Amino acid sequence: MNCTRTIGTSTILPKQSAAQVFKILNGSGAVTYSRPAFVGLQQQWSSRPFSTSKPSKWREYFPKPDAPSIRETPPAWPHPVYTEEQMKQVEIAHREAKSMSDKVAVAFVRTLRWGLDIASGYRHGKGTMTERRYMIRNIFLESVAGVPGIVAGMLRHLHSMRKMKRDNGWMESLLEESYNERMHLLTFLKMAEPGWFMRLMVLGAQGVFFNAFFLAYIVSPKTCHRFVGYLEEEAVITYTREIEDIDAGRLPMWEKMQAPDIAIKYWNMPEGKRTMRDLLLYIRADESKHREVNHTLGNLDQNNDPNPYVSKYKDESQPHPGKDLKHQKPTGWDREEVIGKL
Amino acid sequence: MNCTRTIGTSTILPKQSAAQVFKILNGSGAVTYSRPAFVGLQQQWSSRPFSTSKPSKWREYFPKPDAPSIRETPPAWPHPVYTEEQMKQVEIAHREAKSMSDKVAVAFVRTLRWGLDIASGYRHGKGTMTERRYMIRNIFLESVAGVPGIVAGMLRHLHSMRKMKRDNGWMESLLEESYNERMHLLTFLKMAEPGWFMRLMVLGAQGVFFNAFFLAYIVSPKTCHRFVGYLEEEAVITYTREIEDIDAGRLPMWEKMQAPDIAIKYWNMPEGKRTMRDLLLYIRADESKHREVNHTLGNLDQNNDPNPYVSKYKDESQPHPGKDLKHQKPTGWDREEVIGKL
Ligand SMILES: [Fe+2]
Ligand SMILES: [Fe+2]
Ligand SMILES: [Fe+2]
Ligand SMILES: [Fe+2]
Repeated sequence: MNCTRTIGTSTILPKQSAAQVFKILNGSGAVTYSRPAFVGLQQQWSSRPFSTSKPSKWREYFPKPDAPSIRETPPAWPHPVYTEEQMKQVEIAHREAKSMSDKVAVAFVRTLRWGLDIASGYRHGKGTMTERRYMIRNIFLESVAGVPGIVAGMLRHLHSMRKMKRDNGWMESLLEESYNERMHLLTFLKMAEPGWFMRLMVLGAQGVFFNAFFLAYIVSPKTCHRFVGYLEEEAVITYTREIEDIDAGRLPMWEKMQAPDIAIKYWNMPEGKRTMRDLLLYIRADESKHREVNHTLGNLDQNNDPNPYVSKYKDESQPHPGKDLKHQKPTGWDREEVIGKL
Repeated sequence: MNCTRTIGTSTILPKQSAAQVFKILNGSGAVTYSRPAFVGLQQQWSSRPFSTSKPSKWREYFPKPDAPSIRETPPAWPHPVYTEEQMKQVEIAHREAKSMSDKVAVAFVRTLRWGLDIASGYRHGKGTMTERRYMIRNIFLESVAGVPGIVAGMLRHLHSMRKMKRDNGWMESLLEESYNERMHLLTFLKMAEPGWFMRLMVLGAQGVFFNAFFLAYIVSPKTCHRFVGYLEEEAVITYTREIEDIDAGRLPMWEKMQAPDIAIKYWNMPEGKRTMRDLLLYIRADESKHREVNHTLGNLDQNNDPNPYVSKYKDESQPHPGKDLKHQKPTGWDREEVIGKL
């Protein structure tokens, strides 16, 4: 099969590296399906470089919309501006689990992480991860990451109508978060095509996670926001490690790789700053924002407090939460800091 | 009980008329619960003027957020600008049901309308509707109207992640629509407090309609958009009739009434144009927009076409869909008009 064809409307990757990357996740149409177990599959992935997807199938991915009169469809939520300096300041952090609810949230994240580590062959210790393994990890992570925001946003919307109460601006941040996560996913998908097994996993994970999160959010939205906060702590760790591995020369394929068109547009990536490393800096910064937003929301009165990320403040000159990275609070803002002394 | 207290943070209504309106939907805590049947309750509503809700309960409605440092929380989607001239051009319209799918959609809307007519005591013929009956009808209508957009938006989001395809901008309009409907609901709730029976109906309706629409949208999104298009045709009819009844002097209580604060802010209602009639002009215009959007979406290829309402056009000088009322197409744009000749 010829791997040099383009995905969608544009080819930014040099043909050679694109072809290499395309193969990363492709277990589909393999010679044998006899070992579809998780670890077995990873071994297959390491040793079997070929995708046998038919060209006709590839087209489905990012079909060029056949819309002669339409030029483009801009993103629903334009991405806030991050400076390079701000993105470099993003760091790994952990909010101490104090309450019982916090501890439950941490326990769930640990369990999920353990599963994901196995699935993506993630090992502690330098040099054990390849581009392929990271890509599997990222795609899986992002396909799940888009669920909480939309579920929470929808439940708050229905709740507001049912209980006839205002939402106080929470939906906006929640929906925007899930939109941003979906852009992460679509961006990675521009760089790698998942095989049948990966797709099956994503399908299963969404089915299970959607229902679990839906029920959990009805029971305890506070715990759910804390849970997402902890999940995003892990996301920041993963992306930090990827950036470090690039810098240490352990991911040679990614060093030369350029970010896809979709990413350049969405993040407004300036010219000369459009490598895979730059892309990971943006994505990591997004995750740090979700980490902060959800830890903050987890500190608030779910029914009555306004969303501090979309509110206007009486004293705008004081540091307060916002959509950009101006004031970074990795473990979230405490209630008193944002709502004020009651 | 004293009915002159205010709801929430502001009193815009003159005390007298506010007190009258507050009573409209209040069947709660009535002297007798012995006739909770639908029609029976309407008779109760007509003959029993008192609410016995305790003041402590009223506070729940629109609690003043106890947030000393926060000034306000602006709407997630700022409302597009409508001129008065444009709002007056909004008219009743019906898109002919051509396909089988269209006919199914019409049949469902007719059934729902029949139920709502009974529930709100709506009769054809002039002068049979009171402010109270209209308010019941509006609140019930709006509490259901906010469901389709959020369900469709969420399902498209999950679909995009699961199938690893772009959404092409549809979610934005769908979520915005449900947000707008929720603002309609909250606005009416500022003017009338539903009693226990009404609340129960809203709860039941949401439960049933959410699940039904969820499943229906998975089966046939096209039919669902057509369904919403027809539903909005009915909404335009209802609000047109309310405006006509005000003009004919049949709703004296509404003639003097001012729009609540929440509405003035959301629609940016200019000074001197803030009566109930002005408010209904805005709301009717919103419904006409939903009617157009959903009929248009119902004409498109659900998987591949970009959303014409958020797209940029190659030739922006040609009339094309947008968020405001510049080019009104009550029965929707045809696919070729927006996507272009293929
Ligand atoms: Fe992400
Ligand atoms: Fe995230
Ligand atoms: Fe409405
Ligand atoms: Fe509507």
